[in-house]
Amino acid sequence: MTANPPEHTGRRDLDPHLARYAARTAGMTASEIRALFAVASRPEVVSLAGGMPNLAALPLDSLSSQIGEIIAEDGLVALQYGSAQGVPVLREQICEVMAMEGIAAHSDDVVVTVGSQMGLDMVTRLFCDPGDIVLAEGPSYVGALGSFAAYQAKVVHVVMDDQGLVPEALREALAAAERAGQRVKFLYTIPNFHNPAGVTLAVERRAEILAICRAHGVLVVEDNPYGLLGFDGQTYPALRSLDPDNVVYLGSFSKTFASGLRVGWVLAPHAVREKLVLAAESATLCPPTFNQMIVSRYLATHDWKGQIKTFRENYRERRDAMISALEQHLPAGCSWTHPDGGFYVWVTVPEGVDTKAMLPRAVTARVAYASGTGFYADGFGSRQMRLSYCYPTPERIKEGVRRLAAVLESEMDLVRTFGNVNMRAIPGPETPSPDTA
Amino acid sequence: MTANPPEHTGRRDLDPHLARYAARTAGMTASEIRALFAVASRPEVVSLAGGMPNLAALPLDSLSSQIGEIIAEDGLVALQYGSAQGVPVLREQICEVMAMEGIAAHSDDVVVTVGSQMGLDMVTRLFCDPGDIVLAEGPSYVGALGSFAAYQAKVVHVVMDDQGLVPEALREALAAAERAGQRVKFLYTIPNFHNPAGVTLAVERRAEILAICRAHGVLVVEDNPYGLLGFDGQTYPALRSLDPDNVVYLGSFSKTFASGLRVGWVLAPHAVREKLVLAAESATLCPPTFNQMIVSRYLATHDWKGQIKTFRENYRERRDAMISALEQHLPAGCSWTHPDGGFYVWVTVPEGVDTKAMLPRAVTARVAYASGTGFYADGFGSRQMRLSYCYPTPERIKEGVRRLAAVLESEMDLVRTFGNVNMRAIPGPETPSPDTA
Repeated sequence: MTANPPEHTGRRDLDPHLARYAARTAGMTASEIRALFAVASRPEVVSLAGGMPNLAALPLDSLSSQIGEIIAEDGLVALQYGSAQGVPVLREQICEVMAMEGIAAHSDDVVVTVGSQMGLDMVTRLFCDPGDIVLAEGPSYVGALGSFAAYQAKVVHVVMDDQGLVPEALREALAAAERAGQRVKFLYTIPNFHNPAGVTLAVERRAEILAICRAHGVLVVEDNPYGLLGFDGQTYPALRSLDPDNVVYLGSFSKTFASGLRVGWVLAPHAVREKLVLAAESATLCPPTFNQMIVSRYLATHDWKGQIKTFRENYRERRDAMISALEQHLPAGCSWTHPDGGFYVWVTVPEGVDTKAMLPRAVTARVAYASGTGFYADGFGSRQMRLSYCYPTPERIKEGVRRLAAVLESEMDLVRTFGNVNMRAIPGPETPSPDTA
Repeated sequence: MTANPPEHTGRRDLDPHLARYAARTAGMTASEIRALFAVASRPEVVSLAGGMPNLAALPLDSLSSQIGEIIAEDGLVALQYGSAQGVPVLREQICEVMAMEGIAAHSDDVVVTVGSQMGLDMVTRLFCDPGDIVLAEGPSYVGALGSFAAYQAKVVHVVMDDQGLVPEALREALAAAERAGQRVKFLYTIPNFHNPAGVTLAVERRAEILAICRAHGVLVVEDNPYGLLGFDGQTYPALRSLDPDNVVYLGSFSKTFASGLRVGWVLAPHAVREKLVLAAESATLCPPTFNQMIVSRYLATHDWKGQIKTFRENYRERRDAMISALEQHLPAGCSWTHPDGGFYVWVTVPEGVDTKAMLPRAVTARVAYASGTGFYADGFGSRQMRLSYCYPTPERIKEGVRRLAAVLESEMDLVRTFGNVNMRAIPGPETPSPDTA
């Protein structure tokens, strides 16, 4: 018997399980944004860092009684295991929600997930072997980058401008991957009110993007948590509506109803959907039955479209507060995107300023943001930051931007005096091309 | 640009995405048990197949008002994102629950998961590269086999007897793997009231099993959903309590409170726990906040131990009904285990009878069970079946066993007349060694 007890090496300060981990754990690192949350959540800090929806407008009293009724009337179903695919009536209602963005779908092709994060994880599980390429906008959603890393997929970023993903850049990325003999599994894209970039894929680009992917045999994974949060009530045709057979669509109730219920979904071509259910079953057995019934009853009995309108108005007011504060306070040389919906503004700061290095100084000045490098898999983003306007009040947003501007000013003073003091700053193209408001 | 559109091959009857899937999807097949559920759920069929807990004894009225109060009083927290690790107060309460089985743990080392299935999936994600070996009892939990397959781990079954996992068999399996140069990542074990075998690991074997694993540098993953459901209120020292540094423990509220909330947990050595939180974050961002608050309030305000006693008594009554019906009706040559807790009896039928082949005839006779092969990764189990007594009433259980006995009788008649008519039956050792009651 070859004894090899990792506990008995005497090096108890190290992780005794280190030799046991799967190779994929090498890519598992705490995201910069998450690491920041503990600090940024102190009450005196204005956090422009998080992506928490502002739920204050929810009708808690009527929700309370309706949720109680579900347990009283149907508790033995609500508290019991359900199917891995999700509650049928909710899947039908989800089709009605998707119809608002032009999608004609059958509820058989919907899989309910524990938030759309689980959808992302399942889709990556289905399609990505280690080393496979995923194309994603640069910058991209930090949670997606985490899922891709967990499956050892390699992310290649595709540049955006203020009209979203640039078709020519997508062509070039695909051609480069093909020349290098790499397998591109899918394009991951957030077409509407992008997280973190705040831009929307122009309607006239959508068919072109889809045609490029189809021509290259590459699937499209469309992540659309913010699509119904356009500030003028405007919606855009979902990519899924334009090419049903080649798009896997991810949806969520986290931003239109309640993130804490963790109810999202995947709409997939039929054959993919079958495999998706098997993957989901081995991941969580089934999504929480009760939560699905809560969402279903909410959709059936509340004016959910009116509620979304209220959310939109709240977010527009906050967007306006942030944009006007940026215009008023940010030093010359900064630029930013101008979102028409969603939660985020993407700011580019002058050369020499490193947003990641500056963050501790910002938090000391009682304002937090998400530095840009977290949204790239390749180290880019040191001159960028994401500012969220979703959660704080307009007054707090203005105060936060004021504090941020002061930090930036003194940082730029340092740069002017001593040159680029931050060794980490990586030069590169500005992406997305900013809306210098 | 090399165009390679998989949609345009003209073979629309096949899955156009077939060439795109990850290698791991080859192991994703519908479990025999799940495939059966649709048929077995017809009301005229007595289902002894499922593992749904019997929730009828839950205090729905008081739950209803308390759950409503959570939303009314604390809805903006309940409906909001939470931490990936889970709600702190619940993690402290989970430590109190685990203390009932001798575990002394700190809430920092607890990670709340979407059911313990997600715990299983996360642990496998952390430790298993493709081709790594997982040791598991034969038979083993079907959902665990699904997770192992999803990460392309190879399962090697270790034989049980009526005292649970056989230490000598574990030694042999480890030695064989070492001779073959295989990497054994962990032993997956359900020590108490095993699913599906219905047996419990003898207390005097526990230290020995742990010592063997430690000596071979192999982690132990202890899955314990049924530990508090011993029919005489008896509990056993958790493996985790005997070797905290080398055991990852999976717990669940699915059988002691409500499966539909999907609240489980992992207790892991500290270094493992840190990676576990990162893995969980990329899988679902966070478990549902509301569900965690429901469980927390339930534990704080209900007589949850009294409730578990009620559950236990219900299950004991059902176990008694099943065992006496088996004794009364099953033909000679059948044998079965005699569970002292949990949900399941494991039946071995006479040679020549194939439980999987017989299943359609059983369902025609209006009784369903789970055939044994689903609980093995290696095709074994064709002479075994799992009978669940957790959900139906005692009368239905008796009627189900009566029907099953008649099907078995006629199947054995066929075998006597024509020999072994089922080509699929695989000979092999009977495992676990049955309690021929």
